Amino acid sequence: MAIPHPYLLFLGDAPDQLAAKTGAGVAQWRPDWCLGQHSLPGCQADLGLPEMTLEDAAEAGCRTLVVGVANRGGRIEASWQDSMIRALQLGMDVAAGLHARLTDLPAVAEVAKLENRQLHDVRHPSRGFEVGTGEPRTGRRLLTVGTDCSVGKMYASLALEEEMRARGMNADFRATGQTGILIAGDGVSVDAVVSDFVSGAVEWLAPANDEDHWDLIEGQGSLFHPSFAGVSMGLLHGAQPECLVMCHEPTRPHLRGVPGYSVPDIGMAIEFNEQCARLTSPGARVVGLAVNTSAMGVDDARAYLSGLADRFGMPAVDPLRDGVGPIVDRLI
Amino acid sequence: MAIPHPYLLFLGDAPDQLAAKTGAGVAQWRPDWCLGQHSLPGCQADLGLPEMTLEDAAEAGCRTLVVGVANRGGRIEASWQDSMIRALQLGMDVAAGLHARLTDLPAVAEVAKLENRQLHDVRHPSRGFEVGTGEPRTGRRLLTVGTDCSVGKMYASLALEEEMRARGMNADFRATGQTGILIAGDGVSVDAVVSDFVSGAVEWLAPANDEDHWDLIEGQGSLFHPSFAGVSMGLLHGAQPECLVMCHEPTRPHLRGVPGYSVPDIGMAIEFNEQCARLTSPGARVVGLAVNTSAMGVDDARAYLSGLADRFGMPAVDPLRDGVGPIVDRLI
Repeated sequence: MAIPHPYLLFLGDAPDQLAAKTGAGVAQWRPDWCLGQHSLPGCQADLGLPEMTLEDAAEAGCRTLVVGVANRGGRIEASWQDSMIRALQLGMDVAAGLHARLTDLPAVAEVAKLENRQLHDVRHPSRGFEVGTGEPRTGRRLLTVGTDCSVGKMYASLALEEEMRARGMNADFRATGQTGILIAGDGVSVDAVVSDFVSGAVEWLAPANDEDHWDLIEGQGSLFHPSFAGVSMGLLHGAQPECLVMCHEPTRPHLRGVPGYSVPDIGMAIEFNEQCARLTSPGARVVGLAVNTSAMGVDDARAYLSGLADRFGMPAVDPLRDGVGPIVDRLI
Repeated sequence: MAIPHPYLLFLGDAPDQLAAKTGAGVAQWRPDWCLGQHSLPGCQADLGLPEMTLEDAAEAGCRTLVVGVANRGGRIEASWQDSMIRALQLGMDVAAGLHARLTDLPAVAEVAKLENRQLHDVRHPSRGFEVGTGEPRTGRRLLTVGTDCSVGKMYASLALEEEMRARGMNADFRATGQTGILIAGDGVSVDAVVSDFVSGAVEWLAPANDEDHWDLIEGQGSLFHPSFAGVSMGLLHGAQPECLVMCHEPTRPHLRGVPGYSVPDIGMAIEFNEQCARLTSPGARVVGLAVNTSAMGVDDARAYLSGLADRFGMPAVDPLRDGVGPIVDRLI
């Protein structure tokens, strides 16, 4: 079930701005959906939204309290529960992308039931899926893939949606991770799906569509990551993408979380992703490179991107610094 | 938790021999563990074991009633429950590899609790797993892989265990599917594991071991199957296999369940499996071919296998017809 908006973003007692990263993502990509933020005493994060009481937020029309803060371990702090319960009593749903489940909190679950409101644990699939079929389907689909985890696949997908919509194209971001789901209001956290059903879940998430409609599917992990390549493979096959955008972070010393594994060469990553994608989408090809150059100076970044564009004969951009216009140009 | 043996194999009201395929597998590969079979009126299957009442079986020392029968849909028939309850009352555990769970049957679950016996739903992981690390580990590991699903990977793995043990080698079959788990008495049904944890589950299943110890890991699916390639990939990376055995069924018109997908060429399957395996096991290579030639005449099968052996320069056997001796020869 889709998460109703507008949202009130809950920041809790976030010790710093980074702890409210999820809230920041939602506020950045869905500014129209975010009417305000709600903090507890001691909160050190600020998303620049109006600070609202729960009562004011309900009055203003907020339909869901979205937990925009995370702590180590993905727990739900006892101190957050009063706000959740009050929000439910005021007629709001509550949504969170934490490891712990809202539905496992007896007091919160009881009030949700009493008030007939929904608890959205977006990290945990709320429905079953079929096994993937690999059958061809209509519509156009682009999947962001990466040399590693956490290299900007969600950001690139959302930037593509924004750019396409600004040009009047028919495009939808399809979320496969918890922050993406809070931003999209819907989606499937594929790494939490039982392995047999991953490609089927993605077929469900991005079904047959109009001939001119683009699904911009958020990638996860990397085919080169020893922990998660299976997830990436199932996602790639289920997505059945016509186009891939390869995401990369050039300054990383090794793959995230696994010091023994080096980041693959982009050329090798392009070739291998295309090879694997072609099982279910025979014409699949990488059409652009989205590089997170935040750790590089402006001049170095420009030179690096320009070198990549020359080497691979396709647009190479930093979505944050340059936008993704050149990639969309190429798709038209 | 391991399933205690010896077993009593429960055949229920199996309408034919094929419905008792699971039981037949257990009886074939673990004859010493199977003291008898127990049928209900109308049963048309026979595993050639002594027919026993539940009371006789308990008296004879059976420690687990193993459901060796399956129906369409993987349901647990109402008519089976009385036998399960009686077995629990007689001090046995109950094990099943069906889609439906024993623990979801209120009457059965209640008696199990009362009698302090275990219900083993081997298709459903009973524990959590960590994310895979890809860190190198000691011991020797062989994984069976395939051009398709259901081409004899479990059979080949068990035949390798049998042959190695007959030669005095230190070898253990590691089960990754429900029938295999009933045969091994332990294991993980990897296609039921949450996708993020598949490679970690296999690292747990086949952990570091003695330098001369062989884990013979049961493969699942195929890297070329659009429904399941992600499962196969996670399993391959978690297994960290030094050796692969490629399994194949030469007469199949298309991949199982997906008429639009042709069976890959064996050479391509060898190359791609080696390429993917080398992420976590840099020296991984295919050392033999295990072919199910049951649909071919003896002469055709011999000619076919001999052609494969010549083409790929490695042993090509039908494990059922010829055994796997030539593959083990090559490993020594």
